[in-house]
Amino acid sequence: MQRQARIPTPIVGETTTQSAPPRYVRLGIAVGLGAAIWLVPAPSGVMPEAWHLFAIFVATVAGIMLAPFPMGAVALLGVAASTLTGTLSIGDALSGFSNNVIWLVVMAFFISRGFIKTRLGPRIAYLFMAILGRRTLGLGYSMVASDLVLAPAIPSITARAGAIIFPVVQSMAEAFDSRPSDGTARRMGAYLIKNSFQGNLITSAMFMTAMAANPLTVEMAANLGIEVTWTRWATAAAVPGLVSLLVVPLVLYKLYPPDIKKTPEATRIARNRLAELGRLQRGEWIMLGTIAMLLVLWIFGKWLHVHSTTAALAGLGVLLLTRVLTWEDVLNEKRAWNTFIWLSALVMMASNLSTLGLIAWFSDRVSGLFTGVGWLPALVMLSLIYFYSHYFFASNTAHISAMYAAFLAVAVGVGSPPVLAALVLGYFSNLSSSMTHYGTGPAPVLFGAGYVSLGNWWKLGAIVSVVNVVIWLGLGGLWWKIIGIW
Amino acid sequence: MQRQARIPTPIVGETTTQSAPPRYVRLGIAVGLGAAIWLVPAPSGVMPEAWHLFAIFVATVAGIMLAPFPMGAVALLGVAASTLTGTLSIGDALSGFSNNVIWLVVMAFFISRGFIKTRLGPRIAYLFMAILGRRTLGLGYSMVASDLVLAPAIPSITARAGAIIFPVVQSMAEAFDSRPSDGTARRMGAYLIKNSFQGNLITSAMFMTAMAANPLTVEMAANLGIEVTWTRWATAAAVPGLVSLLVVPLVLYKLYPPDIKKTPEATRIARNRLAELGRLQRGEWIMLGTIAMLLVLWIFGKWLHVHSTTAALAGLGVLLLTRVLTWEDVLNEKRAWNTFIWLSALVMMASNLSTLGLIAWFSDRVSGLFTGVGWLPALVMLSLIYFYSHYFFASNTAHISAMYAAFLAVAVGVGSPPVLAALVLGYFSNLSSSMTHYGTGPAPVLFGAGYVSLGNWWKLGAIVSVVNVVIWLGLGGLWWKIIGIW
Repeated sequence: MQRQARIPTPIVGETTTQSAPPRYVRLGIAVGLGAAIWLVPAPSGVMPEAWHLFAIFVATVAGIMLAPFPMGAVALLGVAASTLTGTLSIGDALSGFSNNVIWLVVMAFFISRGFIKTRLGPRIAYLFMAILGRRTLGLGYSMVASDLVLAPAIPSITARAGAIIFPVVQSMAEAFDSRPSDGTARRMGAYLIKNSFQGNLITSAMFMTAMAANPLTVEMAANLGIEVTWTRWATAAAVPGLVSLLVVPLVLYKLYPPDIKKTPEATRIARNRLAELGRLQRGEWIMLGTIAMLLVLWIFGKWLHVHSTTAALAGLGVLLLTRVLTWEDVLNEKRAWNTFIWLSALVMMASNLSTLGLIAWFSDRVSGLFTGVGWLPALVMLSLIYFYSHYFFASNTAHISAMYAAFLAVAVGVGSPPVLAALVLGYFSNLSSSMTHYGTGPAPVLFGAGYVSLGNWWKLGAIVSVVNVVIWLGLGGLWWKIIGIW
Repeated sequence: MQRQARIPTPIVGETTTQSAPPRYVRLGIAVGLGAAIWLVPAPSGVMPEAWHLFAIFVATVAGIMLAPFPMGAVALLGVAASTLTGTLSIGDALSGFSNNVIWLVVMAFFISRGFIKTRLGPRIAYLFMAILGRRTLGLGYSMVASDLVLAPAIPSITARAGAIIFPVVQSMAEAFDSRPSDGTARRMGAYLIKNSFQGNLITSAMFMTAMAANPLTVEMAANLGIEVTWTRWATAAAVPGLVSLLVVPLVLYKLYPPDIKKTPEATRIARNRLAELGRLQRGEWIMLGTIAMLLVLWIFGKWLHVHSTTAALAGLGVLLLTRVLTWEDVLNEKRAWNTFIWLSALVMMASNLSTLGLIAWFSDRVSGLFTGVGWLPALVMLSLIYFYSHYFFASNTAHISAMYAAFLAVAVGVGSPPVLAALVLGYFSNLSSSMTHYGTGPAPVLFGAGYVSLGNWWKLGAIVSVVNVVIWLGLGGLWWKIIGIW
């Protein structure tokens, strides 16, 4: 029997390393930072409420980075602080919880449980493997292709990479006697693991619903009056995304080649696994139909007058009515509730900071520094700084919370086409996680499997980051010109 | 060792009996009912959107009563239907999720976990027992007093009665050799169980945060422009509530006497249990402090300018910061997430029905029937019909959803003082569960323990219902006159 797909990491694990200072020291730093800002008088042109909310926001983001408590708890403490200090009314403080983009992602979390429960997820992976798996490079592409198919409806990258792709990769590597500890890692496992990780980041960038914090960028853009729909995000990402998915596995294959190159055995193993799974079960058919319906509604929703969140609600409704998912499954989906809380809290703060005028004030100040520089070099510079600053972040959410709104405001302030700037920074929020072993949820899971050495992880990550930047800014830029985004 | 407090029923159990028709027949009935209303042309004076939402609302409430799926799933399907049919925008459909009264209750759910986790809940019960437990009547009062102390911060009546009080009652009954099956039930257990059940319903009526669906009545009243705050609810309930808590145990003691009347042994047992629990632990001290802070903020919030939901957020914040509760505890609190979904869905529908004018239209029609009847007899009549119709309901939520808004609107329409009508119907939404073994969450748990026969459960329930009605309408009416509610 195939190993049961399991999620290998704790859901709300605290991501600090063992050498981190004690919990309450980290809490003290975050709170102290916020208190210091609070006590400084608001600069002229900034309302006291805006300044106070900024202080709370900085403390919250610092708390997310230092992680004295899990991210959800830190976010909720931030909400509590914002209303307890009288900075926001209780209505404003809770406003994020009915945000429709957040519910789009929360619904997708619930729906994605169906891929694991019905085993449709692993089946898709083995199907691609049976078709493409005659060579190790083909195995790499089959994992990336599976991830791409699953991405639009699985916003948890850790679930996608960790609970669906990772077990398949691991069992395949073991079938070829490639294990982390006995000197056989480079035979095959190391390449597949590294490749699956990089592929996962590219697919995360390709759909608004493919990574939990993508909606945070959408909402921050909306606060600046920039509309990014599900379709616009996916259309603009399609060409650079597909090219990246073709190029990156090849680059890794050349730079980090597996010892075993030909794997005729793999297609047989994959077919055996498919035989074990048997014919498509009722639940899998329904999942397929639901995902097809979702994609149609997400892509053509504008013409059909169906909001993307309405579509996701309908999708979950189908799964509940057919009992592919039970209500108990929904209530057990702790990742969804966790994301719901932190995402709502951050969206609420970002939205109120914007309403209170702080983002505009900041952008006015900083944009002045770019006088005489054209918007295009400025945007490239801003996006590269944004990208490579991810070396300092342990989660996409922290990175986006801390930098996205400010960088976007400045980019627009210097004259960049707004949608272009919003999308580039949005895509880079995902792609920039390629570089480290701690930068995003799946990184510790896949790095932690032990196949790839730390040095190789960083070196290859840096190279892939350049490849992605070139593809997305170069070819992507061309594509975005063609479809009229700038 | 004391038995570990456990919640004895599934959290989202489907409450239908075994003889119910199959799931999809029940679903068909609910959907068919909604479809029939949808297809009937809207009466003159009613907007089509209002009529369509009414159809979806009726289907949802029918779904909650017939329970083809758990309540949360039915409610979410109702939300999906409301926006998929274009009856409501996605923004309106999701609006309930940021309602501050709902978050008050959700926060209280999280906080209440602390009573069970720290064992403060059972400690309180044994403490009262050590003081009052020399006689069986005193044991009855000690259970009721414990429930009263816990009620303001535990909105799950099933958790309160089932997970805290019930294990204490059961272990006490067993200590006196009173068991359900061997003819010894009436010795002591039967009285204590029945008494705890009735006491639980009275405490549920006494605080807005003492029963999960109470906020639904508050929001339905708010839709009619009637403001019911936490303090107003509690103040008005205090006198009739305390009198009920004194009288009902005595009535049951006379009508349904336990064989064992004197129980000097019980205080010794309680003291032993307290000794086993040891000194107050750090977590219990923090829980006590948090609850004290909450009560102060809830009672004096108006003067301190702290919203009741802000207070609850702060309370949860304290428990998280001190790690009395972990974030994992919060995410695991499935009852809270379940309540969040169904409560938000129902509040959203009720609020939109009101905004769209349906409640006013209905009230205008029906109020006409009361022409020539004074508001006082009309209100008494309406509240009695409301009360005794609970024989037909298997949950407080279903009862409130189906009848509260309409009955309140009619009561106000015939001239009743609005706050008076809102409170009476709100209190009766709790007290009316006294009569059957299926009318509210704790009923099947406590009846299911097997101490009380079905005949006695119903007979005593009917008698207690009359006692409560007399106390709350009679003495309550007097109290409400004194404090100026009418």
